[in-house]
Amino acid sequence: MSAKRSPAVTLKSIAAEMGVSVTTVARALKDGDRISPEMVDRVRATATRMGYVRNLEGARLRTGKTFVIMAFLGLSPEEEVGDSGSVGLLNGIHARLASTDYAVRAVPVSAAEQSLDRVRDVVQGRLADGIVLDHIGLQDERVKYLLEADFPFVTFGRTELLSAHSWFDIDNEHAAWQGTDALLRDGHRRIALIDGDMGQTFVRQRLRGYERALSEHGLSPDPALRFHAEPSAEAARGIAADLAGENRADAFLCVNEMVLLGARAGVRARIGAGIDGIGFAMRAGTNLASYVGGRIHASHFSRRQSGWELADLLLRQIGGADRASCQKLVRTDLVTT
Amino acid sequence: MSAKRSPAVTLKSIAAEMGVSVTTVARALKDGDRISPEMVDRVRATATRMGYVRNLEGARLRTGKTFVIMAFLGLSPEEEVGDSGSVGLLNGIHARLASTDYAVRAVPVSAAEQSLDRVRDVVQGRLADGIVLDHIGLQDERVKYLLEADFPFVTFGRTELLSAHSWFDIDNEHAAWQGTDALLRDGHRRIALIDGDMGQTFVRQRLRGYERALSEHGLSPDPALRFHAEPSAEAARGIAADLAGENRADAFLCVNEMVLLGARAGVRARIGAGIDGIGFAMRAGTNLASYVGGRIHASHFSRRQSGWELADLLLRQIGGADRASCQKLVRTDLVTT
Repeated sequence: MSAKRSPAVTLKSIAAEMGVSVTTVARALKDGDRISPEMVDRVRATATRMGYVRNLEGARLRTGKTFVIMAFLGLSPEEEVGDSGSVGLLNGIHARLASTDYAVRAVPVSAAEQSLDRVRDVVQGRLADGIVLDHIGLQDERVKYLLEADFPFVTFGRTELLSAHSWFDIDNEHAAWQGTDALLRDGHRRIALIDGDMGQTFVRQRLRGYERALSEHGLSPDPALRFHAEPSAEAARGIAADLAGENRADAFLCVNEMVLLGARAGVRARIGAGIDGIGFAMRAGTNLASYVGGRIHASHFSRRQSGWELADLLLRQIGGADRASCQKLVRTDLVTT
Repeated sequence: MSAKRSPAVTLKSIAAEMGVSVTTVARALKDGDRISPEMVDRVRATATRMGYVRNLEGARLRTGKTFVIMAFLGLSPEEEVGDSGSVGLLNGIHARLASTDYAVRAVPVSAAEQSLDRVRDVVQGRLADGIVLDHIGLQDERVKYLLEADFPFVTFGRTELLSAHSWFDIDNEHAAWQGTDALLRDGHRRIALIDGDMGQTFVRQRLRGYERALSEHGLSPDPALRFHAEPSAEAARGIAADLAGENRADAFLCVNEMVLLGARAGVRARIGAGIDGIGFAMRAGTNLASYVGGRIHASHFSRRQSGWELADLLLRQIGGADRASCQKLVRTDLVTT
């Protein structure tokens, strides 16, 4: 490799040149935290003039940090539409880390496999400074292990464990209530729920919101209108075609974009233009609804923003914040097209 | 942090225990390359029994490698549908690296900004072992710099530079020819092209394919049917509504999923059920077409697969392969729904 290395310009020599402290120079070159914008500009100009180049090796050795975040995500084998994997999360994690020295290693996991061994490898081998976990179980073994090891981590979604840990979550009960309520206000009465597997925390939360909205409108939930499985467009297509064809449902509350598209395709194939009388609502991480045509209620929260928040909570912990203070719950916006 | 470190079990002590070479142990624990599966199992079992944990710090110091890949990508601020950013690429890059020790740092860039300074920082500060570049210009300054610095990199798309460099690309001329040809075989004659900005290599390649298909069917291209701009659903919606309403176009060749959805929304708003007489084709990185309804020709190549191939070519170069040998062109599949 013929790329030239600069001579040994250090934080110390820049500080001496400018007559300021090494801490000031370090902060100005890193993220400008607690330094005036003018000083940041002055330090950066001096550093450039002197030929300073950053090198992470020194910081690694000095701090014992790896500057790596491990993200255990459900990476989908095919790029799908919307909420079918953690690709949006990954985007947001990278976006938050772009202004830092951190790199990401993504560990693909499925909801079924809990990957405890891989988590243990990271902690024991010090392969990263912190961990992001998705597909959280009610009694997640990985969370128990990481709490015991006192290793920085954040989960996307909550557990039912009593010990406080850092998490970011969307208020799923509210989101499902919001969509169901919107469909009821449109006059629909037989609202089918097409949702994920009941083993996942967020599915139980959604079910509560759905039933609460029905009960507020004086309706009791009909078990024949509830479908729980690994979400897929194909399955939703079949369910919706059956229900709409036999006039059993007049609206669909869908767990994500894929399920909404599948349900709409099924209804359209079965009753054609009659689809205009059927209501649709979904939880959404994209603005897909604007392009589909027809009235759709979307409970929207960006998955990219979710990834950003996860990385932010994790960085705060790595920086020393108490893990119980690193929790965040956000509500979805109802967007009707 | 209370996570316990193992005692100093090394590759050497495992090799001594088993009576095999250190190289065998290292390969078995890394990727199993050139080692029998049985030996991999035996080595891993011994390592686990002896309490061996991997630690990258040693490898970093020994090899001088950072085990970081920098990916300069157009990360979209909102999670969009399909080909609107490099999120699918990022997914594929992570998937390829999952079996290695590499982490990724994503540097968000827009097509307009060429980020030469950031590339120079990476090389001079040795912040990574290799670089992935997207949004490639015909005479890309970053490519020129990296060739001169002899630093491992791979581009998504080709340049017009004479020096050989490593790239991965989709055969865009073929993809556009394929879509146009399919529309012509369906009987369409006035095919509008809604594509990206002409400053990008792939847009010129697509234009050639579009014009070649027309000419093979005895038609000359009509400049009034060609639209070049930063692709967006909104713009496509307006263009398609105008053209369909005034009966000027009977089909649309769309650069990606967003543009297709926008164009369909525009046509539907303007001529309603008349949309069934209008042809649609697009370049696609997702299976969106199956859920939209209506006949759509998709020239499909997975963006995740593209990311996988980019990371693979880059690893080969970091491993010492000649950059001129690290080039790959793939053809899209025509999928008609």
